[in-house]
Amino acid sequence: MVFEPETAVERLRDAWPGLPPDERVRGFFALPRDEQDAFFLGLSPRAQAQILLGLSDDGHRRSCIRILAPDDAADVLQELEPDMRSRLLDLLDEATRHEVKALLAYAEDHAGGLMSPRFARVRPDMNVDEAIRYLQRQARDRLETIYYAYAIDAQQRLVGVCSFRELFAAAPERTVREIMHPEPIAVREDMDQEEIAALFRRYGFLALPVVDASSKMKGIITIDDIVHVVHEEATEDAQKFGGMEALEAPYLQTRLWQLVRKRGGWLALLFLGEMLTATAMARFESEIARAVVLALFVPLIISSGGNSGSQAATIIVRALALSQVRARDWWRVLGRELRTSFTLGAWLGLLGFVRVVLWQKFHWMDYGPHYLRVATTLWISVTGVVTFGSVTGSMLPFLLRRLGFDPATSSAPFVATLVDVTGLVIYFTVAMLMLAGTML
Amino acid sequence: MVFEPETAVERLRDAWPGLPPDERVRGFFALPRDEQDAFFLGLSPRAQAQILLGLSDDGHRRSCIRILAPDDAADVLQELEPDMRSRLLDLLDEATRHEVKALLAYAEDHAGGLMSPRFARVRPDMNVDEAIRYLQRQARDRLETIYYAYAIDAQQRLVGVCSFRELFAAAPERTVREIMHPEPIAVREDMDQEEIAALFRRYGFLALPVVDASSKMKGIITIDDIVHVVHEEATEDAQKFGGMEALEAPYLQTRLWQLVRKRGGWLALLFLGEMLTATAMARFESEIARAVVLALFVPLIISSGGNSGSQAATIIVRALALSQVRARDWWRVLGRELRTSFTLGAWLGLLGFVRVVLWQKFHWMDYGPHYLRVATTLWISVTGVVTFGSVTGSMLPFLLRRLGFDPATSSAPFVATLVDVTGLVIYFTVAMLMLAGTML
Repeated sequence: MVFEPETAVERLRDAWPGLPPDERVRGFFALPRDEQDAFFLGLSPRAQAQILLGLSDDGHRRSCIRILAPDDAADVLQELEPDMRSRLLDLLDEATRHEVKALLAYAEDHAGGLMSPRFARVRPDMNVDEAIRYLQRQARDRLETIYYAYAIDAQQRLVGVCSFRELFAAAPERTVREIMHPEPIAVREDMDQEEIAALFRRYGFLALPVVDASSKMKGIITIDDIVHVVHEEATEDAQKFGGMEALEAPYLQTRLWQLVRKRGGWLALLFLGEMLTATAMARFESEIARAVVLALFVPLIISSGGNSGSQAATIIVRALALSQVRARDWWRVLGRELRTSFTLGAWLGLLGFVRVVLWQKFHWMDYGPHYLRVATTLWISVTGVVTFGSVTGSMLPFLLRRLGFDPATSSAPFVATLVDVTGLVIYFTVAMLMLAGTML
Repeated sequence: MVFEPETAVERLRDAWPGLPPDERVRGFFALPRDEQDAFFLGLSPRAQAQILLGLSDDGHRRSCIRILAPDDAADVLQELEPDMRSRLLDLLDEATRHEVKALLAYAEDHAGGLMSPRFARVRPDMNVDEAIRYLQRQARDRLETIYYAYAIDAQQRLVGVCSFRELFAAAPERTVREIMHPEPIAVREDMDQEEIAALFRRYGFLALPVVDASSKMKGIITIDDIVHVVHEEATEDAQKFGGMEALEAPYLQTRLWQLVRKRGGWLALLFLGEMLTATAMARFESEIARAVVLALFVPLIISSGGNSGSQAATIIVRALALSQVRARDWWRVLGRELRTSFTLGAWLGLLGFVRVVLWQKFHWMDYGPHYLRVATTLWISVTGVVTFGSVTGSMLPFLLRRLGFDPATSSAPFVATLVDVTGLVIYFTVAMLMLAGTML
């Protein structure tokens, strides 16, 4: 039994993420010849492309690319420059080249770009025994995997589906039409991968058929392709949520200037937005000059708003992504957030109140004769800012989706910036009301 | 062809996330009797448990729970109180009850809690024809899905595996031993679901066998179970990252006091940490009193640090989660982040410099006769704070993992709090150096 194998292959696989391209190619060559194929198959399309580029002769390239299924070959070619692409296409046999070319016409993140054209097909009027023998021939020949057998009519239209298990368990003399499920769920070739992932999650399928506008069957998307999509989308969402553009490659393979560009755009935008805090603070400059103690709590106040806003945004973005919350639920979410965050804010504010009073009593800090008013200002402001932050954080994803953006787009820092400016206005307004006639 | 069906079932499925439990049960009953089974199968274990609780008689309960595979039944029972659990166990037939009880002994997020005991077994010395006929009998009887056939010796130990396609495509007279892969990768029954998901991602398997300490085969985990795990872990990570404890139920089904509890703990901790900003500011109280203009830029400075830190933390947390970066890469990451963030910081700082100079020139704001020194202070501070923020944000996930915590634990707000305090110290130190003898 092998749990954590320690062969040359495993050591290379382990070192892989940290290796620069040329060392990857060298490491691949150093593998025993009979391990190379399996290793190559396990790589990402990007890494497969690096290996193919690194190979010196077309014979070796041919033997590598020929072991790929057409959809995987298309993914690799999409990573390469046009001239290398057509050179590699020429190395494929006629039938596969035809399939790969058809796949290259689709966008990578649409159904057509994810599907494999090698699905298991049967005719609705075969009997079970014939169908199994027909599938057995296809399995020897060209099938990658067998989940479902698709019943296709003479016009290549998808008319039914049965799981392999159903076919296998049925009496041999029944017809496919008798055991198949008519009108199967199918996706159109231009459906986006995120929608497809949602369908897989919703129905628990292992594979979905892909059809064109006239219901002709074009291929299948299998769940293992979708696992990659889910990981990819989770990473993209996390990066967008963290306030940057999604990276196109793994971190260590991304060039530095690309990192600067992907992060710099949003940072600069947030920085410009945050400049409004300087404007807001300037409006209260004379109050700060009269009661410097007010300035001391500025970071505390605005960060509470930012933190509670980022919590709320996180919850709602994930709930929207998993369809646990729909657009029309915004009103219910608002009600829940108002109650939750008012409670949270009141408690946090109380912590702030106690802190000021304690520090004053123990003479660790002197907040002046009106320290109780200062402490109360803090309490009220934190309650207001936390409530405002959560409401903003929970409503912004709905608003972004309504405007046609991805709800994950930069939500956390975006919320923080909005809340910082408003938080300052809330804080100083409360302070002017509480301290008028005493400190102000 | 059905893309977006609009039947009663679909309407219920659509409304489902927003429905309270009793309306769910009512909606389920209102479905045509022959649709109920399929609908029930598509629900989450939590929702299935709600339905079972809502049913009034054991006959109906029996017909619902009997359609579940043993691993799914175990998931449902885990959602229920002990008395309801044993009542439902009694409704199962002898053999299934035995299987379900065995599964209930495992932790939900370990291999044993995810696996199905109904795998396709063959003997290594059968020939292909015998093996296919043996599988055909199992398919009629008890198999859920057929991906791989597992070769089991007389002691129930796993000795090999072949994909169904391989078996199906092989010449009928060869033996299973000839075509099987010996020493298959297997997972131990107590392996954690996150590790299992990583194995699936790494090797691209459709199913993995689960064995006990003596290599006895106990069940299989299939990729569709893992898709749920990936979604679940992504949500948990996002919530932890957003600075809260992970919710146990979908947002709209979580009670308000639970929301308060899950969010309040971290918020309070962060609030207490952020109180250090008040302490830090107090140390510079006299500088603020002499140059109130310094206070105006406090939110701008600390938020730049927080934003760049949250970007860096996001990137590294995801890269660690997908094993694109390993623990030993911290040194390379540090080098990359220093260069990237210094560049970013210098550009953002320049924006700040330009803003002060422009506002002064156009008389929108008066920063005093030493406005160029103020602008330079801003430039240098932003550069330092952004660099410090990115380095902290990128190193903290490594540190958390090293200390045995999940790297995602509250990284973004945690980083922001750390960076806020240090950012203030950097800013006021730069200010004292730049403005000594003029404004201070």
